Parts: sequence; structure tokens; C-alpha cells
Amino acid sequence: MDFQSWVGTRLNLVEATLKRVLPGPDIAPQRLHEAMRYAVLDGGKRVRPLLAFAAGELAHADDERVALAAAAVELIHAYSLVHDDLPCMDDDVLRRGKPTCHVEYDEPTALLVGDALHSLAFQLISEYRLAADPETQLDMIRRLAAAAGSRGMAGGQAIDLAAIDQTLTVPELEFMHIHKTGALIRAATLLGARCGNGLAEQDLGRLDHYAKLIGLAFQVVDDVLDAEASTATLGKTAGKDAQQNKPTYVSVLGVTRSKAFATDLREQALAAIESFGNRALRLKELADFIVLRKF
Amino acid sequence: MDFQSWVGTRLNLVEATLKRVLPGPDIAPQRLHEAMRYAVLDGGKRVRPLLAFAAGELAHADDERVALAAAAVELIHAYSLVHDDLPCMDDDVLRRGKPTCHVEYDEPTALLVGDALHSLAFQLISEYRLAADPETQLDMIRRLAAAAGSRGMAGGQAIDLAAIDQTLTVPELEFMHIHKTGALIRAATLLGARCGNGLAEQDLGRLDHYAKLIGLAFQVVDDVLDAEASTATLGKTAGKDAQQNKPTYVSVLGVTRSKAFATDLREQALAAIESFGNRALRLKELADFIVLRKF
Repeated sequence: MDFQSWVGTRLNLVEATLKRVLPGPDIAPQRLHEAMRYAVLDGGKRVRPLLAFAAGELAHADDERVALAAAAVELIHAYSLVHDDLPCMDDDVLRRGKPTCHVEYDEPTALLVGDALHSLAFQLISEYRLAADPETQLDMIRRLAAAAGSRGMAGGQAIDLAAIDQTLTVPELEFMHIHKTGALIRAATLLGARCGNGLAEQDLGRLDHYAKLIGLAFQVVDDVLDAEASTATLGKTAGKDAQQNKPTYVSVLGVTRSKAFATDLREQALAAIESFGNRALRLKELADFIVLRKF
Repeated sequence: MDFQSWVGTRLNLVEATLKRVLPGPDIAPQRLHEAMRYAVLDGGKRVRPLLAFAAGELAHADDERVALAAAAVELIHAYSLVHDDLPCMDDDVLRRGKPTCHVEYDEPTALLVGDALHSLAFQLISEYRLAADPETQLDMIRRLAAAAGSRGMAGGQAIDLAAIDQTLTVPELEFMHIHKTGALIRAATLLGARCGNGLAEQDLGRLDHYAKLIGLAFQVVDDVLDAEASTATLGKTAGKDAQQNKPTYVSVLGVTRSKAFATDLREQALAAIESFGNRALRLKELADFIVLRKF
């Protein structure tokens, strides 16, 4: 199967899973459920689910299980976007080519949508059998919670807020992104793998290293696209970071060096998983997909 | 041990647990962690933890395990208060006798505090061994997530928002509160019990019925106190519901009938656990404590 077909089948599977696990718009409270579906379905690149599937293949994981774990990660990601877009945070009006949740509905609804998606992620990841044994599944839940929390994504968001109008060094920028986007990307990758046969600790370490590098590359590319691409192409407001005086790789390194940095991170990521050989085919293809998109 | 001493030792235990599991204010991002501790520690009645301990005793549960489960529930409760107090929701400035989190810190920090406490609850409840077997623990996590989510607490909050300026019937009011506060109170009670020896399904059903009635009684009493007590006594802004035109038991039934309703709910709750005899002593005492406080 070529990469595009592989991506297509996986996207369909995760979308179907999300559609199934999100409460229907006919269930009370209807407006909240409608808004939750609005915030999650039919949008986004689904990079985290794709990483989960690719890592799952390495561990011969069942696709249905990976789809559930990936959906849980995507629910966390979607909640974070809804909250990040709120007026008291980034105050953004456009996301995934549509009005943001608080613009389409209202601010209190968007706040509750984020909260309810957050809970739903943990309901999902505890409700179905996802791993060979329940101990592993408990550890997967712990991992997802830690990645989302104050020493992961939410903490990265706090660092991001504190960085407005500040000049950061490259290591400081890296620290921020390893938390803000990296933690959840790493969790997605590891969760995918842990749905399958137990990989050796060393192999999980390699996979995690790959995910860390790819997560960072993803952010560097995002910064470049934010600076170069149009709002229409991105489906979200372009040039927002510069406007808000947020330090980015582009503001610190410039576009040319940022692109070179992303390319370098991709090469390091590929080196990290080289020993897996062809079993890591999708992980390699994803590295290219993430770094080379729309450059 | 008399009830006051029992309450005192349990409050100390849950407070110590919360202090231990909340990241220290010296860990980055410091301000976020400081604000998380501000929002959770040294405040609140801790009704949910007390119910967990009382139910735990019924099932001969280890107090350390119950303390962890109770702390997870209390983190969810604390996050919901921080988000409920935000300007886009109830816009409240006083909570537990202190400025609310967004007043003491700022709005984006308060948003992230809520999000990070939410994640921490699930990290906590998956990180330590809390039940006789991991399958039970997975089910406890699922239960907590469902209680917090769109068909539980967050959903109740959405119904509450939609009820502003509306006239509700008693059954509609009950539906709202069963979600908004009842779901988490029931989860606290069941989680406490499930930390111990497996109670029979029928006994869990009795306990859940008790918790449902007590949760509702708690809300009725809250409405009466909100109408009658002073801001100083409550530690939160009194008369807020009437001011915001929110339907309450007092606005629908009046004070006298509301008090009679609370008393009736307490009697039903006691009847639900009568067959447990003296093993349910703390549950009985808590029913009195909740319904008879400051009337």
C-alpha cells in the first residue's frame, strides 16, 4: 500500500472512531454535544493519530485498538485547541478553516467543550481493552495524563504565555515546544506502540527519541508555515505569532536556518529508528510528510 | 472515635496527599504550579473525599488508597470551581474565603490551572495501585471520567448555563443538579468503596442510591445557604444565584419547602443504607453533617 492510501485508510478509521465515541447531537445537553463534535470532527491533520498508527505497526498492534488510543490523544489535542483559541488566550477566530468554537457557539460553551473533550479522552482510554494486559493500559493512561498536564502540554502553554514579548534562546524555545506540542506527540507514538506486542525497553526508547525529534521538527515547520503561508492555506490565522510578539524559530533563527534545522531534526529522527529497518516504513514516511509539507 | 475526630484525621490525610501529588512551586513552570496549589490546598469542605472515606470503610478499604482516589476526585472538583469562577462563566471573585484563581493570578493562568488539575486527577488515579486488581482500577478511571464529562459534571454546567433566566420545574432542576454536582459525589462514593473488598453489586447499588440522594440534598442545602447565609460565612459570594437569575430550589420551592425537601432526601438516603447497619456509621453521620450544616 502506498503512503497516501495508508494515510487515507487510517484517517478514515480514526474519524469513524471519533464520530462513534463523541456523544450524538441528539443526546442532552444537545448544544454542548453538537459543539464538541464541531470542534473535533472533519478537520485537522491528525498527525498524532497517524504517528500512533505508524508506531502501532512496528509493534503489530491491532488497528482498532490503536484507533481508540489515537482518538483519545486527538480528543486531548482538540480540547487544547479550543481552549487556546479562547479570547483570554490566543483570541483566535479561525481554526481548521472554520470559525473557532467560541465564535461559532459562545465562550462558556467553548470552555465546557474543552473540559468535556478532556474527560472524554480518559473515558475512552479506560473503557475499552487497548493493551495486552490492564497494567499496561493503566500505564498508558498515566502517560497520556502526564503528557497533557502541567509538566507536559498545559505547562508548555503556560511557558508560551510567559514568553510573549520575551527574547528566548534556542534552548528555551526548545524547552517550551518539548512541553507544548512535543509531549502529546510522544505520548501518541508510545501509546500506539503499547497497543501492540510489548516492544523491548530499548526499542521504546528509540521510538520515543524519534517522536521527540519529530515533534520538534513539526513545530519548527509550523513556525515557518505561520510566517510564510497564507491564512487560506493554513486554515488558521497566519502570521499570528509575530503579531502577538511570540518568539518562534523564525523570529530567533530566521526562515533559512529554521528550514535547515527542521531538515536536520528529520535526519536525526530517521537515524533513531534506522535499526527497525522496513518495519518502520510508515514512521519514515511520516517524518518526510511532517517536515516536507508545504515548504 | 467520634465524628469530629474521624473527619479531622481524614481531612489531614487528604490534604497531605494533595500537597504531595501537586507539583511543588519550585518546579517549572513555577507560576502555574503555585496557582494550582493555591486553587486546591487549604480550603473547601472536602465533602467528596469524606464520602469516599466513609464508603471505603464499608468495604474495609485501605485509607492510603482511598486518600489517593479521593484526592483525584477533589482535583476534578477544584478544576471545575476554577473554570466556573472565570469571567465568561459565573464571573466570581471570591472562593473559599480567598480571591478566585483568575483574580489572584490572571485569566489565562486560571484556565490552564483548571486544565492541568483535570489531567493531574487522571495521572493520580492511574499512577498508584488503588484497587485489588487493575481491571477494577480501569473501571474506576472510566467512572471518574464519565462523572466529570458531558453526561456528568460538565454537562450539568452546560444545562445550568442554559437555565439562566428560565423557569424550571422541580424535575428539571433535579436533572441539572444530578449532573452538575451529583455525578462527582456519586463517583467519589463509589470510588472509595471500590478501593476496598469487592462489594456485591446490590450493595454498590444501595451505596450509589445513597450518594445520589445525598448529592441532591447537598445542592438543596447549598441553595438555602446561598439565599440565607452571609458571604463571610460561606466564603463565597452569597446571593449570587438570585442575582444571576439562576433557578434554584429556593426560587422554585421557597425556603421552607426546600428545607423540608432536604430533610426528606436525608431520610431516604439513610433508608438506602439501613441494611449495612453499623458499618455505615460514617455514611449516616455524613448525611447529617451535609443536611444539617448551618441551617
